Amino acid sequence: MSNDFLSLANKGVQKLHPYQAGKPTDELERELGLTDIVKLASNENPLGLSESVKAALQKELTELTRYPDANGYYLKQALADKYSVALNQITLGNGSNDLLELIARAFVDNSHEVMFAEHAFVVYPLVTQAIGATAVVVKAKDYGHDLEAMAAAITDNTKLIFIANPNNPTGTFLEQDEIKGFLNKVPSDVLVVLDEAYFEYASAERRGNAIAWIAEFPNLIVSRTFSKAYGLAGLRVGYCISHPDVADILNRVRQPFNCNALALKAAETILQDEQYLVDSVRLNDAGMKDLSAFFDANKLQYIPSMGNFITVNVGQSGDEVYQKLLLEGVIVRPITGYGLPQHLRISIGTEAENQRFKQALTRVLNLQ
Amino acid sequence: MSNDFLSLANKGVQKLHPYQAGKPTDELERELGLTDIVKLASNENPLGLSESVKAALQKELTELTRYPDANGYYLKQALADKYSVALNQITLGNGSNDLLELIARAFVDNSHEVMFAEHAFVVYPLVTQAIGATAVVVKAKDYGHDLEAMAAAITDNTKLIFIANPNNPTGTFLEQDEIKGFLNKVPSDVLVVLDEAYFEYASAERRGNAIAWIAEFPNLIVSRTFSKAYGLAGLRVGYCISHPDVADILNRVRQPFNCNALALKAAETILQDEQYLVDSVRLNDAGMKDLSAFFDANKLQYIPSMGNFITVNVGQSGDEVYQKLLLEGVIVRPITGYGLPQHLRISIGTEAENQRFKQALTRVLNLQ
Repeated sequence: MSNDFLSLANKGVQKLHPYQAGKPTDELERELGLTDIVKLASNENPLGLSESVKAALQKELTELTRYPDANGYYLKQALADKYSVALNQITLGNGSNDLLELIARAFVDNSHEVMFAEHAFVVYPLVTQAIGATAVVVKAKDYGHDLEAMAAAITDNTKLIFIANPNNPTGTFLEQDEIKGFLNKVPSDVLVVLDEAYFEYASAERRGNAIAWIAEFPNLIVSRTFSKAYGLAGLRVGYCISHPDVADILNRVRQPFNCNALALKAAETILQDEQYLVDSVRLNDAGMKDLSAFFDANKLQYIPSMGNFITVNVGQSGDEVYQKLLLEGVIVRPITGYGLPQHLRISIGTEAENQRFKQALTRVLNLQ
Repeated sequence: MSNDFLSLANKGVQKLHPYQAGKPTDELERELGLTDIVKLASNENPLGLSESVKAALQKELTELTRYPDANGYYLKQALADKYSVALNQITLGNGSNDLLELIARAFVDNSHEVMFAEHAFVVYPLVTQAIGATAVVVKAKDYGHDLEAMAAAITDNTKLIFIANPNNPTGTFLEQDEIKGFLNKVPSDVLVVLDEAYFEYASAERRGNAIAWIAEFPNLIVSRTFSKAYGLAGLRVGYCISHPDVADILNRVRQPFNCNALALKAAETILQDEQYLVDSVRLNDAGMKDLSAFFDANKLQYIPSMGNFITVNVGQSGDEVYQKLLLEGVIVRPITGYGLPQHLRISIGTEAENQRFKQALTRVLNLQ
C-alpha cells in the first residue's frame, strides 16, 4: 500500500520549496571536517548574548514544566510602554516569520494577490505559495522597492503588500515620505506589512516611527524582531503592532503558546538593556565601515546597506565563491535564489570575524 | 478612516475563537491578590524541570544570538535512535499544537471535512475552523472515541481524522486492536493523526507502539510531545512520525526555526534522562490513585483516565465550582467548552498539591 502524498497536499503546498536556512557551523564542521568557522551568513548579532538576558534566563530555568503565558502579558506591557501603544495592538510571534505567516493566513485566500518586491525577503513568496495565492513580484529599482510601480500594480484582488525596510538581502532603505506617499495610494482594505526586522540598525535620523502612522493608516502593520539588534535569534521572538481589530484577528489564528517561556523572558529583559542595543549598533556601524572600505579598495561593487549585512557583487558566480569561502572556514550567504547570482550577502561580524572574511575573500578572488 | 477588518479576514477565521489557555498563576495572583496558588489546570508535569535539562541549558545560554538549527539534526537523530525510524520520517513542532496545525494546513482546504470525536482536544476544531473546512464531530461513546461511528461517518470529502489517545480532556483510552481495526476501514487517501500527547502515562502493557504501524498504514501520522511526561511545556517541542513523503510535505510548510535553540537542546537532553520519565510516571500513578480514591470515598463520578489528569463530575455547574476553587487558591480546568458542563479536569499534582485540591474541594462541595 502506497500513496502519492504530494497529490493529496493542497495545491499551493505542492509547489512549495522549503526555506533554505544558513548552514549551521556544526553542520559545516561535520561535512568538511573544519573547525574555527566564522559564520557571517544569517544576519545574526556578533556581540554575543547580553549578560542581562543570561542572568534572567538562569533564574527562569526552574519553571519550564509550566506552559508559557499564552498572552505574553509582561512582554506586551514592556512593548506597550516603550512604543506608546495599547496592549491590544500587539501580536507576539515565534520570530517575525511567524507573524508574516499569520497575517497572510488570516487575511489571504487562494483568490487573492500578495505583492512584494523583487529581491525582497524570501518568506513573502513562501507564505504566499503555501496559501496558493498569486504572488505579484514588482521589479526592483536600484535593488530596492519601486513604490511607484508597486502602487500602480495594485488590483481589486490585491489583499496584502509586504515591504521590507531596510530590505533583506539588499539592505536598501525607503525614506519616511516615500512610504507615507505610498500608503496614501493604497486602498484602505489592502493590508500593508512594513517589515522592520532591521529597524534598529537603520539611521536614527531617517528611520522615523512608522508605528505612529497606524492611527492615520489602520491598514498598516509594523513588524519587528528580537532576532537581530537584540541578539535573540536562537529564542524566536517577534512582534507586530497594528490596529486593535487587526491584532484581535491575528491573535485568534496565533497558536496560544507560540513564544516559549524563555523567549518571553529574554525579550522582556533585553528591552530594558539599552546599553546592549547601543553596543550592537556601534559594532555594526564599525564593521559596515570596515567592509565597505575593503570593497571600495578592491573595486568590488556593493549595495549601500542600512541593515547588519552588506551585499557585494563578486563579478562571478556567487555560489562558486560561496563554496570556496566555505573551504576557508567562512560562511556567507549566496543569493542566487533572490535573483542576484553574482552577489553574496555578508553579515557584519566582530572585528576579528570581518578580518577573517576579508582575508578569505582576498585569497579566493586573488585580490591585491 | 476606519475599516471592518473582521470582514476582511478569511471566512473561517472570522468565526474563530481563540484557544482559552489555563490561567497562569501570576495572572491569578494579580487578579485575586492571592499567593501560594496550586495550579492543576494545564496537565503540566508537577515534578519540576529535570536537573539534566537544567545543566544542559546552563551551558547553552551563550549561543542564543545564533538561529536554531533549522533541521533540528541532533534531536531528530535522538528520536530516530529511540523509535527506530528514519530521520526523514520526523517533523519537529513548536509543541504538538504546531504539528496538528501544520498537518491540517498542508492537506486540508475549505472543501474538505475534518473528523474528530465529541469531547476531544479543542485544537482539532480550532485548526479546522481556521482553514474554513467542515468539522465532522462524531458523538462520543462513554466519553471517548466511538471508532465504529467514526468509520461510518467517513465520506468522499473526509481528508483528515484526529484521534487523541489517551484523549484530553476525558482521559479515555483506545486499545491497539480497536485502532488497527479502525485504520483498516479508513481509505488510504484519508490521513489519520493519532495524537499521543499523553502516551508515556498510558499503561505500558496496553499502549503498544503505533509508530510501527506506519509501514502498514502510510496514511497514519503519530504525534507526541515533550510538554507532558518529559516536563518541557514551557519550551514547546513536539514531533510527529509519518511516512517520509508526508514528513517532506510537512517540512515544506513548517517555519524553518519553529523550535527554538533551548527547546531543541532540552528535548535532546531529556530523551536520554530515563529516570526522569520513570519518576514522572510514578508520581502520576500515585496521584491518580490518591484522587480516584478520594472521589470514590465521596461518591463523585470520574472518568477513568490514562493521562496525567482526571475528569470528575461535580454534580453542579463546573464553572461555578471552578470559581470557588480559585478563591481557595486552586486552579483546575472547567470543561463546559468541551460539552461537559458539570465536569472539572484536574491535572495530577505532587502529593502536597493533590492534598490542597482535596481540601479545597471538600470545602467548596461541603463533602464529608
